[in-house]
Amino acid sequence: MAGPLAGVRIVDVSEMVSGPLAVMVLAEQGASVVKVEPPKYGEGNRQLSNYRSGMAALFANCNHGKRSIGIDLKTEEGLELVRELVRGADVFVQNWRPGVAERLGVGEADLRTHNPDLIYASINGYGDDGPYANRRGFDPVFQALTGYADAQLNPEFPMPDLMRNAVVDKASSYTLAQGITAALFARERGAPGQHVRVSMLDAGLMFFWPDGMLRHTLVGDDVENYMVPGERYQLTPTADGHIVFWASSAEQMRATLRVVGRDDLADSPGQRGAAAIRDENQTERATAVRKGLANMTTEDAYQRMLDHDVPVAPILSQQQVLVDPQITHNGCVIEATHPVYGRYRRVRPAARFSETANQTTAPAALYAEHTDEILEELGVDDEARAGLRQRGVIP
Amino acid sequence: MAGPLAGVRIVDVSEMVSGPLAVMVLAEQGASVVKVEPPKYGEGNRQLSNYRSGMAALFANCNHGKRSIGIDLKTEEGLELVRELVRGADVFVQNWRPGVAERLGVGEADLRTHNPDLIYASINGYGDDGPYANRRGFDPVFQALTGYADAQLNPEFPMPDLMRNAVVDKASSYTLAQGITAALFARERGAPGQHVRVSMLDAGLMFFWPDGMLRHTLVGDDVENYMVPGERYQLTPTADGHIVFWASSAEQMRATLRVVGRDDLADSPGQRGAAAIRDENQTERATAVRKGLANMTTEDAYQRMLDHDVPVAPILSQQQVLVDPQITHNGCVIEATHPVYGRYRRVRPAARFSETANQTTAPAALYAEHTDEILEELGVDDEARAGLRQRGVIP
Repeated sequence: MAGPLAGVRIVDVSEMVSGPLAVMVLAEQGASVVKVEPPKYGEGNRQLSNYRSGMAALFANCNHGKRSIGIDLKTEEGLELVRELVRGADVFVQNWRPGVAERLGVGEADLRTHNPDLIYASINGYGDDGPYANRRGFDPVFQALTGYADAQLNPEFPMPDLMRNAVVDKASSYTLAQGITAALFARERGAPGQHVRVSMLDAGLMFFWPDGMLRHTLVGDDVENYMVPGERYQLTPTADGHIVFWASSAEQMRATLRVVGRDDLADSPGQRGAAAIRDENQTERATAVRKGLANMTTEDAYQRMLDHDVPVAPILSQQQVLVDPQITHNGCVIEATHPVYGRYRRVRPAARFSETANQTTAPAALYAEHTDEILEELGVDDEARAGLRQRGVIP
Repeated sequence: MAGPLAGVRIVDVSEMVSGPLAVMVLAEQGASVVKVEPPKYGEGNRQLSNYRSGMAALFANCNHGKRSIGIDLKTEEGLELVRELVRGADVFVQNWRPGVAERLGVGEADLRTHNPDLIYASINGYGDDGPYANRRGFDPVFQALTGYADAQLNPEFPMPDLMRNAVVDKASSYTLAQGITAALFARERGAPGQHVRVSMLDAGLMFFWPDGMLRHTLVGDDVENYMVPGERYQLTPTADGHIVFWASSAEQMRATLRVVGRDDLADSPGQRGAAAIRDENQTERATAVRKGLANMTTEDAYQRMLDHDVPVAPILSQQQVLVDPQITHNGCVIEATHPVYGRYRRVRPAARFSETANQTTAPAALYAEHTDEILEELGVDDEARAGLRQRGVIP
């Protein structure tokens, strides 16, 4: 059976990560997506590194399940082709800076004249207006502006740092994917087509906030026991590497003492009841555990923590992630071979539907791969396509 | 006008972050949510620190817009109350370990007998079965298992580290929120009610993958120019702190040289065309920019980068985030006063809908605050409620 969004038609002119990844989430659930790419080389993400035979890794990871058409939007004929695609679509997605879509003739007002029920979806960096609206954005810039970098202090090296993956880009993608889906649902129940807007600044802050801004949630005095779990996220050295564990209950705290052979301390009155959370007893416990783990191998510590039902993991390298027994069991990673760009891996969508389970979608398309097929569906015949090609409207 | 999910009714028995935050996203879009909490103190998240007058900050941040009812699910009468809630609901959400819902009598099969069209949504740690299925999970454990910790190397201190916020919890929330919305859409178009499943392990890997696993996407030899942007996410020291910038185009790279007053180098042949990406020229440029920024204040460097249209930001402290001019302009942070727990802040949802814009939802409920109101809606009268209370079924 097809995915939950089977029958939904999307025209996607977005570039790089935030927009394309949002649309890929929907494509993986069965939406039919036409990706409109600019002339010559296609969208910016195709120009990146990690490249083989016409495919860049980051592009692939954000564009599975879409068909690609090359159109020069800056020609009147190209613009008319996009309008024609939009007439038959449910959703249009762009992620340019404010004003760009309007200048190109594909702003909301323009497209709504061609399709009144359209769901028009956009991501920009900072918002439609305001002091930063016209600035260029980039993931780490948003991390710096929304609290992540400030929070990313390693207690052992107390300086701010970045998260080394594009968390704000991706949070924006997920926010837009859900927003589009909600707008589709509302339209099904009678709401008009509408504009769903996400700015990366807003989405970055919204994603950070729930556990990141705990010190700024209850305002004023009398807040008891300030503690931000993230500030205590830390790796613990073992004899041959690091391990991560988290003992949240009193029982688990004592269990960590047993793991390192300190049953004497686990059974002591200082580690029981209210006494266990006194500063000096916490310090004694933490020191004993740290010292004990430093003398154990990661493997040994891991097994013993598991035996005591303490949440624990070794730090897997990316190679180890790919062959981890549970990740393999869950079928998270799909490996396949594309006739042109060869063997590749992709990740299976995490949301699994019991009744509308979608099949694995087509692999990321080569630039403009489906230009003829899509135009044929629009009724643009061989001769007309030859003319468009000659005039540089399509590649 | 109400949000896009107005009219959707959700019964939420989930705890801590992943489930509650997913449901809050839907509540903020107009879904009507009944949060069912266990007896005595309510769900686990209420017991945490950053607490004032019956409200914990993390609980508030995951539970705005829901009504709270206390029910002892382990009593037959309590279970029947939940069944009755489910009969009138569209969605049921739980995030227990595999098998727990079934033991409690609220597994999918149980509830479907009471509501055949129900969308049953669940989050667990590792999957329904497989080698780790019964382990306890915790956000940093998933970070370690899905590649984040391995990637989180600061080039200056090359050891793995964690992301200091619950990124896997939250990615799981967003994945489930979108999945539930897609299932609602599909049902509106004729699909049956179904089970939407997310495991944190899968969701963590899926969120990390697009830009995190670039080295493992195209498999085999002949991949050109391995480069993972995240590995180059780095703060640059200034005379009085740090700054983050990103020069992705050749023009922006030369602009960074002008920012530090090295127009001579910007105009040199080595920084133009293909020569600019030669290792020695990259190194020369990077060294000059780093040296120059070390002698400028953050404010000065920031302004000059902006003047040159290079994506840039200072590292804002959390206090500065709250008063940032663009964040203020966008109205991202809402401050209000609750009659019991006082002044608090919350974040405005990042997905903004032009036609079904929802109003700010009610603040996070006190434990069991709406027990009588909800039971009255179910037709449980004063006398019956008194009996339930006496028998310890409701608080």
